[in-house]
Amino acid sequence: MARRAVTEAGTPLAFGVDIGGTKVLGAAVAAGGEVVAEARTSTPQVAIDPDEPVRGLAGAAVADAVADVVRALERELDAVAPGPSPVGVGVPGLVDRRGGVLRFSPNLPGAVGADMARLLAERLPGRLVRVDNDANCAALAELRQGAAAGVADALVVTLGTGIGGGVVQGGRVVGGAFGFAGEVGHMVVDPAGPPCPCGRRGCWERYASGGGLGRLAREAAYGGRLHEAVALAGGDPELVRGEHVTRAAMAGDPGALGVLDELGWWVALGLANLAAVLDPEVIVVGGGLAAVGELLLGPTRRAFADLVEGGRARPAIGIVPAAFGERAGAVGAALLGREAP
Amino acid sequence: MARRAVTEAGTPLAFGVDIGGTKVLGAAVAAGGEVVAEARTSTPQVAIDPDEPVRGLAGAAVADAVADVVRALERELDAVAPGPSPVGVGVPGLVDRRGGVLRFSPNLPGAVGADMARLLAERLPGRLVRVDNDANCAALAELRQGAAAGVADALVVTLGTGIGGGVVQGGRVVGGAFGFAGEVGHMVVDPAGPPCPCGRRGCWERYASGGGLGRLAREAAYGGRLHEAVALAGGDPELVRGEHVTRAAMAGDPGALGVLDELGWWVALGLANLAAVLDPEVIVVGGGLAAVGELLLGPTRRAFADLVEGGRARPAIGIVPAAFGERAGAVGAALLGREAP
Repeated sequence: MARRAVTEAGTPLAFGVDIGGTKVLGAAVAAGGEVVAEARTSTPQVAIDPDEPVRGLAGAAVADAVADVVRALERELDAVAPGPSPVGVGVPGLVDRRGGVLRFSPNLPGAVGADMARLLAERLPGRLVRVDNDANCAALAELRQGAAAGVADALVVTLGTGIGGGVVQGGRVVGGAFGFAGEVGHMVVDPAGPPCPCGRRGCWERYASGGGLGRLAREAAYGGRLHEAVALAGGDPELVRGEHVTRAAMAGDPGALGVLDELGWWVALGLANLAAVLDPEVIVVGGGLAAVGELLLGPTRRAFADLVEGGRARPAIGIVPAAFGERAGAVGAALLGREAP
Repeated sequence: MARRAVTEAGTPLAFGVDIGGTKVLGAAVAAGGEVVAEARTSTPQVAIDPDEPVRGLAGAAVADAVADVVRALERELDAVAPGPSPVGVGVPGLVDRRGGVLRFSPNLPGAVGADMARLLAERLPGRLVRVDNDANCAALAELRQGAAAGVADALVVTLGTGIGGGVVQGGRVVGGAFGFAGEVGHMVVDPAGPPCPCGRRGCWERYASGGGLGRLAREAAYGGRLHEAVALAGGDPELVRGEHVTRAAMAGDPGALGVLDELGWWVALGLANLAAVLDPEVIVVGGGLAAVGELLLGPTRRAFADLVEGGRARPAIGIVPAAFGERAGAVGAALLGREAP
């Protein structure tokens, strides 16, 4: 069915590939934004000696995986694709848009220093390849065809293992001077807080991410406030994970709902900081944690109304769920490829 | 001399007025950015009953003061100004650009709720009046003719009694959805920190402003680390102010230099947060504290290099002093008036 839609429309496809910490997800996207094919593989794990890291060692392996995913998509679409389609690639970290070099990446440390644009171009000859930060790609998807469609000034935040962000100003995803804008997870919200893989302490993503939920959950479990979730985890507080909390909360457990309230407060704290700086009309919340839905967004909205500067004296800022879920990065990467100048 | 310059060039003047917490400062600005006349008056202090605030009560008095300043400038320039000049006004707080209403202002609470654009237009008939946030005005001055001239993506931060900010993206001062962008002083950097007049705790401006310096200074004084500054304050640690610390530091006192190092760390913490979100090429530091110069900017740059995400792996971000000093807001307001559509 999807194939027919493409053939009938005759519109060129674009490929988008989202490099995650654990998987590489590819999507072939038609002009209307429909995903007509999907492919995925594992993110290559290259062991790094922290005392003597070989800069960019994993970059080639990661680029191989991206190329594999693109070729898998091309094979699947052979009958309908008229020729090489543009390829957009979302990379988790600071991608220098002046050269495509990955400058910094807590979640892909082995590829730091690699020129991803060059490595990908070598593996995908004849195709137009564009590289950007993964969360900027997700923001582009939400801006063009998702929850921020038609909004001039928006903020897209992805709450997953870490926190990514995309800043929309004047209807554009803004990159900043080097393409590094939107690294919202690494705002420090407590200089005495827990250490972060980025090297500092108390980054927002230590609190308002999946990892932050796990930490809040274990604290509550050891505090005796999380019986249902502990039972779901087999009885050991140390084994309580975010998924146990969200399952218990969906079943109405007060302890689990309390943990999600607390998580919502931390989400709101960072969003209020960002609202003070950026003044968005709408904040779009995506990523794995957003799948929890209103059980998280409700407490987030309530805490945000108290925390945002100006409070109820200022026009309200909408906090809405993302439209694209885990595919946002891949879809946005495809749009990036298509929109390449 | 200044008058002749205007007459010779024949360029229209613009008036800019910066409303501060203590003074209202006006400047007549020629096309090249030269200040050709200045006028000032005190900011009207209207007592507010915190239990029953009359919204906007002080707005009319503040607008009167602005109009007085503008008329004083016009009188002084009578011989050279060909007719009513555009007037830009910088207001400390959240000014809704859709209507000119002051929505929130910790430093001008009595004027909250006032429609500043309307009040000013009534008092300055026949003149084109534009209103914006004071720090956005300062950013415009630095962007057009100051330390951020020619820079596409910059951040202007004013460290004074509080902290203001202006975000430059793509060569424009961005206002956000409602004109409230750039309220960088109210990023929370420690939710358990000292209370802020904005209603929250641990805002960046509790640490990295003139008030923050005073707090650090008193802590150091009571800790016995600030003999010189305590002596300058007459021997009482409670009376130590920022100016005593900066004077002692300029004289080389190690204790005072240590306090400025600490202040620089807090300045750098917030700048690193903002760099993660905005990725500016240059950060311009203005406001009263910037007058301390390299004794503060040096420690700030060193701490920033450690605190910014990506550290030395990313291209360096310049941290430079503002060009316009305390006049930035008034000059920028004049530019705002001139650039009105």
